[in-house]
Amino acid sequence: MRELLCEMLRLFYSKGWVSGTGGGICALESPGRLLLAPTGVHKERVTPDDLFVVDASSGEVLEPPADPALRPSECGEIFRAIIAARGAGSVVHSHALAAVLACDLAPDDALVIERLEMLKGIPNTTNTDRHMMPVISNTPREPELTSEVARVLKDSRFGNAQSIGVRDHGAYLWGTDIWEAKKHTEVYHFLFEALVARATTGGARNALPSEMRGERR
Amino acid sequence: MRELLCEMLRLFYSKGWVSGTGGGICALESPGRLLLAPTGVHKERVTPDDLFVVDASSGEVLEPPADPALRPSECGEIFRAIIAARGAGSVVHSHALAAVLACDLAPDDALVIERLEMLKGIPNTTNTDRHMMPVISNTPREPELTSEVARVLKDSRFGNAQSIGVRDHGAYLWGTDIWEAKKHTEVYHFLFEALVARATTGGARNALPSEMRGERR
Amino acid sequence: MRELLCEMLRLFYSKGWVSGTGGGICALESPGRLLLAPTGVHKERVTPDDLFVVDASSGEVLEPPADPALRPSECGEIFRAIIAARGAGSVVHSHALAAVLACDLAPDDALVIERLEMLKGIPNTTNTDRHMMPVISNTPREPELTSEVARVLKDSRFGNAQSIGVRDHGAYLWGTDIWEAKKHTEVYHFLFEALVARATTGGARNALPSEMRGERR
Amino acid sequence: MRELLCEMLRLFYSKGWVSGTGGGICALESPGRLLLAPTGVHKERVTPDDLFVVDASSGEVLEPPADPALRPSECGEIFRAIIAARGAGSVVHSHALAAVLACDLAPDDALVIERLEMLKGIPNTTNTDRHMMPVISNTPREPELTSEVARVLKDSRFGNAQSIGVRDHGAYLWGTDIWEAKKHTEVYHFLFEALVARATTGGARNALPSEMRGERR
Repeated sequence: MRELLCEMLRLFYSKGWVSGTGGGICALESPGRLLLAPTGVHKERVTPDDLFVVDASSGEVLEPPADPALRPSECGEIFRAIIAARGAGSVVHSHALAAVLACDLAPDDALVIERLEMLKGIPNTTNTDRHMMPVISNTPREPELTSEVARVLKDSRFGNAQSIGVRDHGAYLWGTDIWEAKKHTEVYHFLFEALVARATTGGARNALPSEMRGERR
Repeated sequence: MRELLCEMLRLFYSKGWVSGTGGGICALESPGRLLLAPTGVHKERVTPDDLFVVDASSGEVLEPPADPALRPSECGEIFRAIIAARGAGSVVHSHALAAVLACDLAPDDALVIERLEMLKGIPNTTNTDRHMMPVISNTPREPELTSEVARVLKDSRFGNAQSIGVRDHGAYLWGTDIWEAKKHTEVYHFLFEALVARATTGGARNALPSEMRGERR
Repeated sequence: MRELLCEMLRLFYSKGWVSGTGGGICALESPGRLLLAPTGVHKERVTPDDLFVVDASSGEVLEPPADPALRPSECGEIFRAIIAARGAGSVVHSHALAAVLACDLAPDDALVIERLEMLKGIPNTTNTDRHMMPVISNTPREPELTSEVARVLKDSRFGNAQSIGVRDHGAYLWGTDIWEAKKHTEVYHFLFEALVARATTGGARNALPSEMRGERR
Repeated sequence: MRELLCEMLRLFYSKGWVSGTGGGICALESPGRLLLAPTGVHKERVTPDDLFVVDASSGEVLEPPADPALRPSECGEIFRAIIAARGAGSVVHSHALAAVLACDLAPDDALVIERLEMLKGIPNTTNTDRHMMPVISNTPREPELTSEVARVLKDSRFGNAQSIGVRDHGAYLWGTDIWEAKKHTEVYHFLFEALVARATTGGARNALPSEMRGERR
């Protein structure tokens, strides 16, 4: 599982989602024991020995990595809040530009995503739904986001969401295990790119109500 | 052939055409025996042992993969309809964003593609043709697309098409064998990207009749 | 040199410049003997044994590849015209979308490129020049382009050009050897992408005369 | 360290930041001894033996590479000015299109970057800052940029900047060592891409004062 987390970081780096040492990942190694990437390092270079084991409830470091210079990800508190509220087994933190640009399109604390087959990649969601993803404002320090994260996780509008967008920053994305977290990460990044592209190229058509978009039968 | 199908899935994944477990592929192993990728799995991770063999006429599973958790692709019925109607030997299902955005540009059930050398990559088609590709509306479940697929495959306007676009979803693309299906997949994705780019950057010029575009002699 | 040509095809394929079996490459193996890629094949899969040796003057096939199904590239005549007129040792044929979109921006048979450091990658050219690249119209068959190619190669406006754009099609690019042809191919594709991007995002500013663009001192 | 410099060049090439033989890199091997890439070569092909050792103060070549055809990077003088003024241990010269397009957006000699979490990747900078990056005009020969580089390095508006943009050309980026230079290079390229994308897609919203952008609480 340690190697798989590192492989995911390399994959996400290749897609531009965790560049400049940004972003992060975690996964439950066993109940209560959370594997967590270090902060401030080049994410595509993280090795299995660089991971922290922290208590999933308290955040206490149970096993530090061999290198004493490493510090645990600043996302730890948010990761644990998502795990506690949603039963997630793995959480990804993305610094993708598409996530930032998609959040720019949200008029308030919700991004509406609709009319895309890829929505089926989200549990209990289909292509005819108006999917609501929460978007929160950025703060100077990452742990300060936690109260907003906790608020939107309890908001019934966002009951199906597997991602929280953070304005000017990126997104958190999760799943029951690493593989589902990877799936949801890819699904939402596709949705982000689609929203941004449609806002540019398909804007006119996309703004019409669906009855007027010339769909045949 | 099993390994080649998996290689194609890895290639298409690297291009962003089958992300988030989306998309699929099939190819006739021998007459009547169709190799089919499983559904709901990370397509770039499919191994030769994960493929189904199904009856190309009935869709009955002739040989399931070793892993009993795998289910055959939901595209199976559409794949078989295309094989039956067009004599295809391999069909690709793409979830590319460029396919979605290109379908956005179709005012009704046809996307007109013209004035591109890449059209020569489609049999019986040249760069001076107005190539017509069918575009159908998406449905909540993939098998429900089949009647629309069958309709456009019989429509004489689309006699040269080697692809069917699905609004908000992606495209089906095919060829006489895996290599020709790969070729047509690359050709149409280039055409999709060109249409979308021209709608944005070259829009004004592109909308002029060719006599007025300043072409020399 | 055969392996290097194949490596270049794989590199250009990875950049999307020779997809869908499009594009091509050639290089002089020795004076008069031209190594030429086959037509209609997946360019990233070409092996050293797949190359033709043709007479650089007459185009006659001197040594066919082992596989009798292969046919020499349709670009052969244009490649030889460029070699004869410019003393090129290697010519690349690109099917890049950026080349097509850049040609869309040319009002007549010339694309003006200016105000870019990358212009220094072209011999006898600097960043303060108004570089003129010829653009010709596409034709149904590739050999029919040859007379237009010959015309622009003799046009003194284009004396420094190391590329000819073909509307709706792509570009030819060359250098004294494979490495310089690679350099010029990368340089011009950067220039194409810059022109297209500036036409979209920097359009307003770019359209101003340089005195009014707010450049400091 | 020589191999690491070459690895960075390959990485930056894969991102399109040093194509067409453009761009460059250097790093202090030990106090006063600067490892410097050669000019005019394909940067992704540079090997450890191709690097120059120059005196970090005078620029004198202390150890040339084995190949006598190689010449030291034209950026050498600028690299040394940045090292002297900022105590940098490694400097990168990028020819990325995103850098050129971002500089297009600067009305004078400063590019203002704000409202992006990625700003935290720059020392002494946070997401609520209005970060000021200097932008200088391009000149026909690279060493002629040095006086402008020296001027902006002394300008107190740019005290936190770890990058200098050059109009129509690219950017210089640095850090205390190769790893920090890589980090800053990735951070600024993300910022460049974000500025350019927001100027296009998020332009309207981005132009509003933050109080009016509909941010919640």
